[in-house]
Amino acid sequence: QGILERLDAGEIVIGDGGFVFALEKRGYVKAGPWTPEATVEHPEAVRQLHREFLRAGANVLQTFTFYASEDKLENRGNYVAEKISCQKVNEAACDIAREVANEGDALVAGGVSQTPSYLSCKDKTVVKAAFRQQLDVFMKKNVDFLIAEYFEHVEEAVWAVEVLKESGKPVAATMCIGPEGDMHGVSPGQCAVQLVKAGASIVGVNCHFDPETSLETVRLMKEGLQAAKLKAHLMSQPLAFHTPDCGKQGFIDLPEFPFGLEPRIVTRWDIQKYARKAYDLGVRFIGGCCGFEPYHIRAIAEELAPERGFLPEASEKHGSWGDSLSMHTKPWVRARARKEYWENLKPASGRPYCPSMSKPDGWGVTKGAKELMQQKEATTEQQLKELFQKKK
Amino acid sequence: QGILERLDAGEIVIGDGGFVFALEKRGYVKAGPWTPEATVEHPEAVRQLHREFLRAGANVLQTFTFYASEDKLENRGNYVAEKISCQKVNEAACDIAREVANEGDALVAGGVSQTPSYLSCKDKTVVKAAFRQQLDVFMKKNVDFLIAEYFEHVEEAVWAVEVLKESGKPVAATMCIGPEGDMHGVSPGQCAVQLVKAGASIVGVNCHFDPETSLETVRLMKEGLQAAKLKAHLMSQPLAFHTPDCGKQGFIDLPEFPFGLEPRIVTRWDIQKYARKAYDLGVRFIGGCCGFEPYHIRAIAEELAPERGFLPEASEKHGSWGDSLSMHTKPWVRARARKEYWENLKPASGRPYCPSMSKPDGWGVTKGAKELMQQKEATTEQQLKELFQKKK
Amino acid sequence: QGILERLDAGEIVIGDGGFVFALEKRGYVKAGPWTPEATVEHPEAVRQLHREFLRAGANVLQTFTFYASEDKLENRGNYVAEKISCQKVNEAACDIAREVANEGDALVAGGVSQTPSYLSCKDKTVVKAAFRQQLDVFMKKNVDFLIAEYFEHVEEAVWAVEVLKESGKPVAATMCIGPEGDMHGVSPGQCAVQLVKAGASIVGVNCHFDPETSLETVRLMKEGLQAAKLKAHLMSQPLAFHTPDCGKQGFIDLPEFPFGLEPRIVTRWDIQKYARKAYDLGVRFIGGCCGFEPYHIRAIAEELAPERGFLPEASEKHGSWGDSLSMHTKPWVRARARKEYWENLKPASGRPYCPSMSKPDGWGVTKGAKELMQQKEATTEQQLKELFQKKK
Amino acid sequence: QGILERLDAGEIVIGDGGFVFALEKRGYVKAGPWTPEATVEHPEAVRQLHREFLRAGANVLQTFTFYASEDKLENRGNYVAEKISCQKVNEAACDIAREVANEGDALVAGGVSQTPSYLSCKDKTVVKAAFRQQLDVFMKKNVDFLIAEYFEHVEEAVWAVEVLKESGKPVAATMCIGPEGDMHGVSPGQCAVQLVKAGASIVGVNCHFDPETSLETVRLMKEGLQAAKLKAHLMSQPLAFHTPDCGKQGFIDLPEFPFGLEPRIVTRWDIQKYARKAYDLGVRFIGGCCGFEPYHIRAIAEELAPERGFLPEASEKHGSWGDSLSMHTKPWVRARARKEYWENLKPASGRPYCPSMSKPDGWGVTKGAKELMQQKEATTEQQLKELFQKKK
Repeated sequence: QGILERLDAGEIVIGDGGFVFALEKRGYVKAGPWTPEATVEHPEAVRQLHREFLRAGANVLQTFTFYASEDKLENRGNYVAEKISCQKVNEAACDIAREVANEGDALVAGGVSQTPSYLSCKDKTVVKAAFRQQLDVFMKKNVDFLIAEYFEHVEEAVWAVEVLKESGKPVAATMCIGPEGDMHGVSPGQCAVQLVKAGASIVGVNCHFDPETSLETVRLMKEGLQAAKLKAHLMSQPLAFHTPDCGKQGFIDLPEFPFGLEPRIVTRWDIQKYARKAYDLGVRFIGGCCGFEPYHIRAIAEELAPERGFLPEASEKHGSWGDSLSMHTKPWVRARARKEYWENLKPASGRPYCPSMSKPDGWGVTKGAKELMQQKEATTEQQLKELFQKKK
Repeated sequence: QGILERLDAGEIVIGDGGFVFALEKRGYVKAGPWTPEATVEHPEAVRQLHREFLRAGANVLQTFTFYASEDKLENRGNYVAEKISCQKVNEAACDIAREVANEGDALVAGGVSQTPSYLSCKDKTVVKAAFRQQLDVFMKKNVDFLIAEYFEHVEEAVWAVEVLKESGKPVAATMCIGPEGDMHGVSPGQCAVQLVKAGASIVGVNCHFDPETSLETVRLMKEGLQAAKLKAHLMSQPLAFHTPDCGKQGFIDLPEFPFGLEPRIVTRWDIQKYARKAYDLGVRFIGGCCGFEPYHIRAIAEELAPERGFLPEASEKHGSWGDSLSMHTKPWVRARARKEYWENLKPASGRPYCPSMSKPDGWGVTKGAKELMQQKEATTEQQLKELFQKKK
Repeated sequence: QGILERLDAGEIVIGDGGFVFALEKRGYVKAGPWTPEATVEHPEAVRQLHREFLRAGANVLQTFTFYASEDKLENRGNYVAEKISCQKVNEAACDIAREVANEGDALVAGGVSQTPSYLSCKDKTVVKAAFRQQLDVFMKKNVDFLIAEYFEHVEEAVWAVEVLKESGKPVAATMCIGPEGDMHGVSPGQCAVQLVKAGASIVGVNCHFDPETSLETVRLMKEGLQAAKLKAHLMSQPLAFHTPDCGKQGFIDLPEFPFGLEPRIVTRWDIQKYARKAYDLGVRFIGGCCGFEPYHIRAIAEELAPERGFLPEASEKHGSWGDSLSMHTKPWVRARARKEYWENLKPASGRPYCPSMSKPDGWGVTKGAKELMQQKEATTEQQLKELFQKKK
Repeated sequence: QGILERLDAGEIVIGDGGFVFALEKRGYVKAGPWTPEATVEHPEAVRQLHREFLRAGANVLQTFTFYASEDKLENRGNYVAEKISCQKVNEAACDIAREVANEGDALVAGGVSQTPSYLSCKDKTVVKAAFRQQLDVFMKKNVDFLIAEYFEHVEEAVWAVEVLKESGKPVAATMCIGPEGDMHGVSPGQCAVQLVKAGASIVGVNCHFDPETSLETVRLMKEGLQAAKLKAHLMSQPLAFHTPDCGKQGFIDLPEFPFGLEPRIVTRWDIQKYARKAYDLGVRFIGGCCGFEPYHIRAIAEELAPERGFLPEASEKHGSWGDSLSMHTKPWVRARARKEYWENLKPASGRPYCPSMSKPDGWGVTKGAKELMQQKEATTEQQLKELFQKKK
């Protein structure tokens, strides 16, 4: 059954997790470029990660084609000697995803994401051509449906949806925005409306913000659609990092991005809360993005197992709410084998010299502005010292 | 070249990371039992993890035989239908490790760990028989050397070393203890002395404590050996979790163990500091245990690359100290492409409702003791209320 | 010169700090009732606190008549044997304030605050009578102007202003609300408009929120007045506690209120930032409320000394930005004798087992709601356990 | 009854709190010099603070003669125009303390503290002369007993005790040291032994460390005395700041000293735990030092009221364990009117951008050492970059 048949029937569809972050930690993707040439260089690593997400309960395997548009792959020139063609990367991604999908009950989704061409103000034709180049591969390899994901600007996301719709396959579209909307100030509700009007059957958010913030954005999208009397399925694939301190542009601006995010990694219990909340909000395509490891996806599948009536394969290696600890020799570890314990635990960071939140970097603090402020303060301080001097 | 030839020549030998934790997150090991039947059930997953550690720079691949003694594997009965024999698990582990080791420049080490038989006070013959059963497989499969690891009691560790020495192969021995010593109160220095006298050529610690604490324990071992005029190589394979708040028994007693440890995960920069400190202390076999992912092992290899003269394979997907960010579009992200930035970053947890440290659970707070205290307090409180009443 | 002459001339007027909290710590006010019978019982303690605020730079001494309406003082019956009449408390408060004001350049402001009568839905006549009873004392004792402060409901505040205006003296009015507005949902802007229309010449906020949040509320009030084309002077007297985690009803709902607020106490440097920000926003009557000790008021006076051209008396015992440390024997303590140091310090709590933020208590978590949730979760958990059981 | 009669009879004697910190916040003492000329300049402020401590339950009022030796008072020259003689400061201090002591049941203790003369290596005669000069005033004013307090070096403390013993009055001696001992490395046990041998009847610690650490130091003193078969009463007057992160020299080296210590201030409940723990350890002279406000002293008196059989005067304005909240209108605030609530509360700092612990400043990080380290790191980094370059 296709993605729309499932969603129309009220099924919960579980997405997969974040490839670039997981494979960066495994040694196959370079932070900075974040490009997916590993599909050609190390297919066994990509295949294994797909398999782990499948086993964890994912119903959708996205082709590992993030940032695999031709213009973006040009960037990779700076660190690999031999070029790998855009076509090869995309084809290999499709083959691997299909191979693993066939091992279970999963759909393959071909994915496109935002392009350097758009950011450098190339015109619509150029940007659309980039998407079409990837789409040609997806059609040749016959993926099950298409996802336009990780767009900061709704205008580009709409162009992507328009191209993908040419295929006749179902199209999903997610933006990497928060409740404040896209980088041009378009609200989440308006973004959702434009995407659905452009042809997306499923809309939502991915990346850039933590589960709680992302669901707030989806809620605003839902409201926007309702107000416009439009219908679409909802989707969410947030970060697996706590980011309550983000600004409008998400976790990129946090000082910890991308090499110091560890203390922000969410637990499996955080994900169970997210899955429940997403479900209660009416989201039925529930997955993850950067930071999501297979056990996080399994947590979605376990939380929603009562509704779905079954557990994922990987639950053979997991107990419900920690009950695999019930035979531990220490009584106080046994005492952790229950839901109430893990649900209420406030986990410590083990980092007493670190704060709990950061101020995001960003445009506000340009060097010029800082210098001006310092100058003003210096004057004030000087005047103050003189007053103190006089006083004595 | 064998392990001792390398160490005797002054080479730095890099160990691998923690299999049970990494494979638990990938869906192949169950927390609680922590047994390695995945070698038979899902060899491709074990093989892939070995490969990632090799690629990250590991010179030693440990067979995935943790908790694979026959008595321990009996426990698995509670969650898998069909039994897999102890011999099969151990053989498969050897085959997989050798297969991957042959893909690069790595040694295979057969590993044994503490047994339920010892903890339930079985006698020396029974415990030694368990080790010998695993050793038989290691000899048949011709591993390069042997490691006795994860022992809380030096007495059992000595028995393990004695059995392993029968093979004629080099033996390393690590205990999962902190600066306070083993569970019988034997100091780290004394533990090291006993292990070396039993035949270990390499001694140190693994698991249970964070890198900083573990190196303090190794330092005490070194002092003990010097005082006893004994020679041995030093080894450390700590946790990749910050645990400054641990008690004597390590991270097991922390309330976050094992499903809420995420905020404690160390960064790659923490590991570079650890590698440097270990090196300066004279440790030359430097690896990791639970929590260590491939990128943590790579961080050891990168930190010590100037001394070794080469980088690991996986560094093709990594920049030195974040320099892969130097072409980012945002200037404040580019500003993170330098050592000083990452070295001094105090990463936030994104968890403002959580503390930075926990009080470990443990024997001290038995129910009886608590009730006594509460009784006493209740009396005091009652008396106090009466006094306040009188006052009014 | 009167309060309006000063403000009209563009002068900065500095308020005093919080009496109930300061005197609770000194042993003269009981937390819970928070009533000011100390004016009769221990006038020397009240006098001394007034003197300290005067010395710190306060230009306004508020009579210690908080919660001194007759209906509120009835509450005190529960802890003092002999009743002290409402009139005596108010008269003594006026006498003490005037005595100290005469020692320097300060105005005396008679203050009224919200009443139990209003909260228990007594009608307008009853509530106004309570204010009028206090006003009679203020007129007899000839205070310089009047303040209606600590109102959660703008309706009651308007009634208070109307009564106070009968006197012909200038009237200031502050509400203890945050950016979300009053307890009936009236926005800060609307509150300000209603207060000015009722006759207040000065409007703003006091208590319940930290300096940053309070200034945000004042900003909204300013916008409301501008939109309504009304003119009034602005005033702020916030808490000296950090409360970024407050809900709509302010610090009362924080779990730490009122006996565990210590880690939230602001530093003198936090206050200097507040004073500057208030000034930049156009606020010219700048003081404090609960938590403000004399040194916090001095910090306002020092920050704005360049604008005012003079320092307060108490600055004879204070250096500019820590420069009294410049002769310390330890070089690293001397290094703290500069603005940049204190301005950028992120002070540690010394409490590694405590979080940085709390979830406020409140209506949302009624017992009934909680039980419902728990019931639902229990079902889900039971279903999940059965699924896990089946899986095995 | 004198101090020794009381202690010998097993009574609990409650000390007062910290004058220099409390009066700094009130505007009468300058941080840095920390000298007590306020006894002459503003006697009413000193008198009021004495009164508050008396009312809170203090049985001992210490003359405000901290740092009032002639050599130390010379320092004040830098900030007051007219010199006030050492004799005048000490005499006024005695008069004020006696006046307030007579208002209740309290003893007056004349106090001396460490001198600049000792630190600048003046000889024994000079140092002793400084103490004798203060003692002359104490004898003339006929204080009840004497305290030598705030000594970092036991040698100087012994000299002080020797001088004070000349008077024939009972002598108490406290050092501002932690468990690591005095600045010459003399252990707490040895310090106690030397002080008792010099003639002190009461020994213990004051200042520099938090209550928990201070009691650990007193415990070591007690052990030292027991081992030496010496008898003395025990005394503790710690900080009212949490300082688990202190180094050997205490809170002076913390980056927050002295103007950013607010988040470390202990609650009344922390003090109740301290009082109980001190009592259980056998300490019978229990008071406080810097940071202790009157309500902290009251908390000692309330915690030990069941043993003593009475409450202090100021408890008329305090409920037992928060029970003054039991009539609050909000049910969740009423729920805080119980011991269990306050005892278990982990109070939040409201400072999500701040850490929970600081690294103390100090000798370890001299500029030279830092430069050396940086040089070494620079080399390593350069080598690493070259290796990465080669790799590409």
